[in-house]
Amino acid sequence: MHSQSSPLGEFDLIERFFKTGGGSNSTLSLGIGDDCALIKPLAGEEIAITSDMLVEGRHFFAGADPEQLGRKALAVNLSDLAAMGAKPLGFTLAIALPKVDAQWLEGFSRGLFAVANHFDCPLIGGDTTAGPLTISITAMGSIPHGEAIRRSGAKVGDDVWVSGTVGDARLALAALRHEITLPESDLKTIEHRMHQPTPRIELGMQLRGIANAALDISDGLLGDLKHILKQSHVDAEILLDLLPKSETLGRQNQEVQNQFAASGGDDYELCFTAPSSQRDAILNIGKALNLSITRIGQITPMINSASEVRLIGPDGKILDNPQTVTLLKSFDHFSI
Amino acid sequence: MHSQSSPLGEFDLIERFFKTGGGSNSTLSLGIGDDCALIKPLAGEEIAITSDMLVEGRHFFAGADPEQLGRKALAVNLSDLAAMGAKPLGFTLAIALPKVDAQWLEGFSRGLFAVANHFDCPLIGGDTTAGPLTISITAMGSIPHGEAIRRSGAKVGDDVWVSGTVGDARLALAALRHEITLPESDLKTIEHRMHQPTPRIELGMQLRGIANAALDISDGLLGDLKHILKQSHVDAEILLDLLPKSETLGRQNQEVQNQFAASGGDDYELCFTAPSSQRDAILNIGKALNLSITRIGQITPMINSASEVRLIGPDGKILDNPQTVTLLKSFDHFSI
Repeated sequence: MHSQSSPLGEFDLIERFFKTGGGSNSTLSLGIGDDCALIKPLAGEEIAITSDMLVEGRHFFAGADPEQLGRKALAVNLSDLAAMGAKPLGFTLAIALPKVDAQWLEGFSRGLFAVANHFDCPLIGGDTTAGPLTISITAMGSIPHGEAIRRSGAKVGDDVWVSGTVGDARLALAALRHEITLPESDLKTIEHRMHQPTPRIELGMQLRGIANAALDISDGLLGDLKHILKQSHVDAEILLDLLPKSETLGRQNQEVQNQFAASGGDDYELCFTAPSSQRDAILNIGKALNLSITRIGQITPMINSASEVRLIGPDGKILDNPQTVTLLKSFDHFSI
Repeated sequence: MHSQSSPLGEFDLIERFFKTGGGSNSTLSLGIGDDCALIKPLAGEEIAITSDMLVEGRHFFAGADPEQLGRKALAVNLSDLAAMGAKPLGFTLAIALPKVDAQWLEGFSRGLFAVANHFDCPLIGGDTTAGPLTISITAMGSIPHGEAIRRSGAKVGDDVWVSGTVGDARLALAALRHEITLPESDLKTIEHRMHQPTPRIELGMQLRGIANAALDISDGLLGDLKHILKQSHVDAEILLDLLPKSETLGRQNQEVQNQFAASGGDDYELCFTAPSSQRDAILNIGKALNLSITRIGQITPMINSASEVRLIGPDGKILDNPQTVTLLKSFDHFSI
C-alpha cells in the first residue's frame, strides 16, 4: 500500500476508508459526500447529540493499536447516548493524522465500523486533515420526546445504581504504567476493559421511564455522580463496600480497590438513580441483558449549600473529609 | 487572570467560557451540562449535520488572533449548512488546548459567540482537553423535508453561479507568506476575507426550490465545482473571464488573478447551478441581500467517462490541458 507512486489525497482517503460502512438506518436521508449529512427524525422524537475528542498521548498512548482506538473512539461517544437513553442514529468523524498510513487507517476503520455496525450507527460525515493525531466524533441518537434521562432528575429517596464493575480500566492503566505489577493473566482479563469499553446502549434505552437521572462514568464514579447531585440539588450516601469490583481488582489491596473503583475513570458504565419501587424492574433488566447492576447507596436531602457525597465505610461510619476528598477526585484532563 | 492560585480545571473552564452564549432557539430542548444536548426538530424538518476540524499551523498560523479564529471556526461550518439551504440550529465544540490561557479563551469565545449570536446558533455541547491546538466543530441546521440542495442535482443546461468574489483569501495568504507584495491598504481590505469569511446562510435558504445543486467553496472554486459535476454525472463549461474578482485581486497580473480565483480556496462563497428560467429570481435575491451573484458558465453533457470542467479563455477557445489542470488543482490538506 505504501509503495504506490502518488500519496493518497484527502478525497481518496475519505472515499477509501470512510465512505461506506457502519450500516444505515431509516432515519438517514443522506450520508457522506455532500456538504452536510441529512437526518430525518421520526415524528415525536428528539435528537441527542454528543461530542468527544481523543488526543494522542493524552487519551491513548502513542503507537496505540489503531483497531482498538477506532473501537474506543466511537464507543465513548455511544456511551454518552446510552446515558440519556438514546438509540444511536449516526456519527461524524473529524480526524487529524500526522501522515497518510494505509495500514493504520485500515485498522482504525475496521475497529470503528465494528462498533458502528454492532449498534447500527452509520458514519454520516466528517473531515480529515493533517495534524497531530486527534480524533473527534460527534454521535447522534433518537429518543421519544420527553423520555431522555437527564442528570437533573434525581429525587431524595432514590436508589443509586451502577452497571457492571468499576475501576478495571484504571487498574489496567496502572499496570501498563508499571505503577502496579499484575500477573499476565489478570492484565489480559482487564486490558480490554480499558481498550474496548462497552457502551450500555440497551441498558440506557430500557431505563427510560424507570431511572430519574443517569450519566456515564468517564472521569470516575463518585466525581461523575457529583454532576447528578449538583444538577438535582441533592446529596448522596454511598456505601464504599458496595462499589462493584471485578475479581481481578478484588485481588488488590483495599486502598487500591477503593481508589480505583471510586475515582478510576474510563469505566463507561452507567450510574443512575431510580425510585425504590423500581428495584425489581431494574434487576430484571440486568438479568435480561446478562449485566450486573448494583445498588450502591441513596439520594439524600442537600445538607449544606453545595451537593455532597457522603461515603459510608465498612464500619457504618461516614468517612472523614480527607479520605472522601481523595476518593472523589475526578480525572481532569488538565490537571494530570 | 493568570495569577490565580489554582489552575482552571476542565469543568470550570467549560462553565466559565462556554456555558452560555450563542442565543437559544425554540428547537433546543437541552443545552450544555448533560451527557448529550437534545434537539426537538419541527415536524416535517430534516436535520443537516456537518463537521470541520481546524489544526494550528495547517488551517491557521501559530499565534493567530483568537477572536478571529473563534469567528472562522464556526463560520466555516455554517458555510456548509448554507450550501444545503439549512437554517442553523446549534453546534458542538471539541477543542484541544496546549494550556489553559484565560486571555486566549476570552478572545476565542468572544469571536465564536459573535458568529453564534448573529446566526442564532447556540453552543449545545462539546469537549475540552489538553493537546496541540485543534478545534473541531459540528454544526446542525434544519431544512423542510426534501428541500435540501444537494451536490447531485445539477442538470444539463443549468447555469453555474457563484456568490461574492473568489480568490481574495488566497491573495491575503500569499501576501502574509510574502509570496506577493501588496500595498498595506489592499492587504487590509482583503485580510478580513481570509480571517472572517461570511457564511451565506440567507442566500442558501433563499435558493431552496431555485438551485438544483450547490456547495460552498473551501478548497477552490473549480476543484469544488468538480464535486457537483461528479455527483451529478455532468460536465461544465466555465468562462475564465467571468470569475468574480475583487478590485484588489483585479490589480494583480492576469495569471495570479486566474489562479487565485479558480483554485485559491478558503472563499466560503456558494457555487450553485440553476435552470436558466431562474436568472431573474437569482439576481433579485442578490439585490435583496446586497450580494453580487455571478453567472460563470453552464452545465453540459458528460463527454468522457469522468466529469470534466472545460475552461473557456478570453478568445472563446477551450484552454489546453496543462493550463486547465493547473487551474483545477484543489487545495488538499495532505498534499501541501
